[in-house]
Amino acid sequence: MTRVAIIGTGLLGASVALGLKASKKLADLTVVGYDRNRDHVAEAKRVGAIDVAAGDPAEAVEGASMVVIAVPVLGIEDVMRQIAGAVEAGAVVTDTGSTKAEVMRWARQVLPDTVSFVGGHPMAGTTASGPTTASAELFKGAQWVVVPSVSASDGAVQAVAGMASALGATPRFMDAEEHDAYVAAISHLPLAAATALFRLARNSEAWPEMSLLAAGGFRDTTRVAGTHPDMAHDIAVTNRVQLIHWIERYREALRELQERIADVEGEDELYKYLATTSMEHGAYLAGKVGRTEVQAKGMDLPENAMSDFLFGSYFADKMKEINQRSEERLAERERERKLRRDR
Amino acid sequence: MTRVAIIGTGLLGASVALGLKASKKLADLTVVGYDRNRDHVAEAKRVGAIDVAAGDPAEAVEGASMVVIAVPVLGIEDVMRQIAGAVEAGAVVTDTGSTKAEVMRWARQVLPDTVSFVGGHPMAGTTASGPTTASAELFKGAQWVVVPSVSASDGAVQAVAGMASALGATPRFMDAEEHDAYVAAISHLPLAAATALFRLARNSEAWPEMSLLAAGGFRDTTRVAGTHPDMAHDIAVTNRVQLIHWIERYREALRELQERIADVEGEDELYKYLATTSMEHGAYLAGKVGRTEVQAKGMDLPENAMSDFLFGSYFADKMKEINQRSEERLAERERERKLRRDR
Repeated sequence: MTRVAIIGTGLLGASVALGLKASKKLADLTVVGYDRNRDHVAEAKRVGAIDVAAGDPAEAVEGASMVVIAVPVLGIEDVMRQIAGAVEAGAVVTDTGSTKAEVMRWARQVLPDTVSFVGGHPMAGTTASGPTTASAELFKGAQWVVVPSVSASDGAVQAVAGMASALGATPRFMDAEEHDAYVAAISHLPLAAATALFRLARNSEAWPEMSLLAAGGFRDTTRVAGTHPDMAHDIAVTNRVQLIHWIERYREALRELQERIADVEGEDELYKYLATTSMEHGAYLAGKVGRTEVQAKGMDLPENAMSDFLFGSYFADKMKEINQRSEERLAERERERKLRRDR
Repeated sequence: MTRVAIIGTGLLGASVALGLKASKKLADLTVVGYDRNRDHVAEAKRVGAIDVAAGDPAEAVEGASMVVIAVPVLGIEDVMRQIAGAVEAGAVVTDTGSTKAEVMRWARQVLPDTVSFVGGHPMAGTTASGPTTASAELFKGAQWVVVPSVSASDGAVQAVAGMASALGATPRFMDAEEHDAYVAAISHLPLAAATALFRLARNSEAWPEMSLLAAGGFRDTTRVAGTHPDMAHDIAVTNRVQLIHWIERYREALRELQERIADVEGEDELYKYLATTSMEHGAYLAGKVGRTEVQAKGMDLPENAMSDFLFGSYFADKMKEINQRSEERLAERERERKLRRDR
C-alpha cells in the first residue's frame, strides 16, 4: 500500500490527489488529507480526492512515503514544524509553493535529516480556489519546476519528478534562485501589472461608465488581479526583491513606450516596434520560444534565412507584409506632406 | 431592396455583414463589399459576408442607403475622400474605428452635407484579423458606442443604433471626447500595458528559459500584445494625449504598488489592498459594475448593508473571511515576534 499525504486540499492539493488517482501509477494508493479549513477537507473527500481525513498535519503524515505541502507559501514553514516530529524516516516531502528560496531555507532549518525535501512548483493554476474547482487534468502539459535540496536522495528527486510526469506535467530541474528570478518576470510581474491596472481603472471616478465599455482586452489583461489574496500576498512577501526589480524595469519599459507614442516624428518606428511585438507574440503563442534562437545566435545567415529558420515561412511572410505596409504608409505620408505644401 | 456597403471586409466588416444577414431584419438585403486587399474581398464573398465585390470605394457606395467604414482608424479619412462624391444623398455613413474625435473631425471636413455621419465603435473584437475569422455572433452582448455628428438626422442615428441592436449589441450614446477618454483607460492602456510587458520579457536574455515557464497568467496578461500592428498604431496615434496620460497614471499606480511591496512593516496593509482588489475584481466579473454604486453613494446605510447591497451576500461572506484571516495573520505574526524576543 502506498500512502500519500496532502497538506492543504485546495485547488492544487486536491488536483494532485485526483491526478495521482487517475494516473493509476501507484498501486493500492491511499491519500490522506488535511486542511485547516474543515470544509475543504470534507469537500476534498466528497469529490474523491482524499480517502482519509486527518485531524492535524502530524496525523496526516504518519505512515506516508510522500508528503505534498500545498498551502500558500507563508503557511509552509508552519506545516513543516507541525510534521517535523511525525514524518517517517526516508519519506519524500515536496511542496507546490510559488517561490522557492525561502521554502528551501525553511526545509533546511525545520525538517529532520532523515527525510528528503524536494521543492516543487507546478506552472499551472487558475484564479479559482478550493477543492470543488480541482481537476485531475490541471497539470496536463504544464511545466513542473523541481528544486532538489542538497541533502535529497536521488530516489526522492526521481519520485517528485515522477509524480509531475504522472500528473501529465514536464519536470524541469532548477535551483531556487534561478526559479525565483524567472517567475518574478513571467508570473509575479504579470500579477502586479494586472493588479495595478485593475486598481487604477476601479479607482477612477469614471469607473461606472468605463467599466460598461470594458471588453475582452481589459478582462484578459486584468484577469490575474482576481488571484486569491493569500497567494498574491505570499508571493510578494517571499519574492520581494526580485519582484520590485521587475516592477522597476516594467515602469521603465512603459516610459519608453510612452516616449515612442509621444514622438510625432517617429510614427513609423512605433509601427515597426508594434509589428515586431505582434509577430514575436505570435511566435511565442505558436510555441516558438527562444531556445532555437539561442542556438542560432552567432550563426552567419542572411536575414531572410534567419527569420525563416526562426519562425517558419508564415512569420517570414507576415514580416514581408508588414514591411511593405510600413513602406506604403511612409509613401502615403510623403504624398500627404507634398499635398499640404502644394496647397 | 436594401443595399449596404461595407468598406473594409476584415474581421469587423465581414462580421457586421454576416450579422446583418443572420438577423434577417433587413428585407431583401444586398451587401456590397470593398477592401484594398483583394484576397479579403474574395474571402468575404466566399464566406457569404458580401454579395457583390466592388472595384473601389466609390463603386461600393453607389445606391447604398447605409455605408459601414470598417478600416483601421488612419485609413478612414482616405475612404471618406474616396466616397464623398459618390455616396447617395440621404444615406447614413458610420464606422467601427477605435477612436472617435479624429473620425468625427474628418467626417465634418470631408463628407457632403447631404449624408448623415454617425460614428460607431463596437466594444468587441479579437486579436485575429481577416474575413475568415469573422462571425455573425462577434457583437452579441457587446456594447456599441454611437456618436452622432451634429448634423446627423434622427433617423440616421436610429438606423445605426438599430444596426447595433440587430447585431446583438447594446447601443450606447456618447460624445467623441468622452468615448476617447474612457477607451484610453479600459482598452488602449491595457494594450500598452500588455505590449510593454511582453517586450520586457521577450527582450530579456533569460527569455528562452523564462518563456518555458510562462503559464496562463503571462499568456492572458500579454494577450493583446498580439493585436494587429495597424490597429495598435492607429489607436496610439489618434488617441495620443489620452493614452500618454493613462500610461503616466499607470506608472504611478505601479510605483505605489512597488512601495507597498517594499514596506516590510506594511504586510497587513498590502494584504488588505490585494484582498479588496481581488474582491472588487470578482464583483466586476459578476457584472456588478459601478452604476448601482453611484446611485448608492450618499445613502446612509450601515457598512454591512452597503457591502451586501453592492456585492450580494457572497462577497460580504468573502470579505468577512478575509478580515478574519487578516486578523489571524496579525496574531500569528505577533506570536512569531514574541517567540523571537523570547529566544
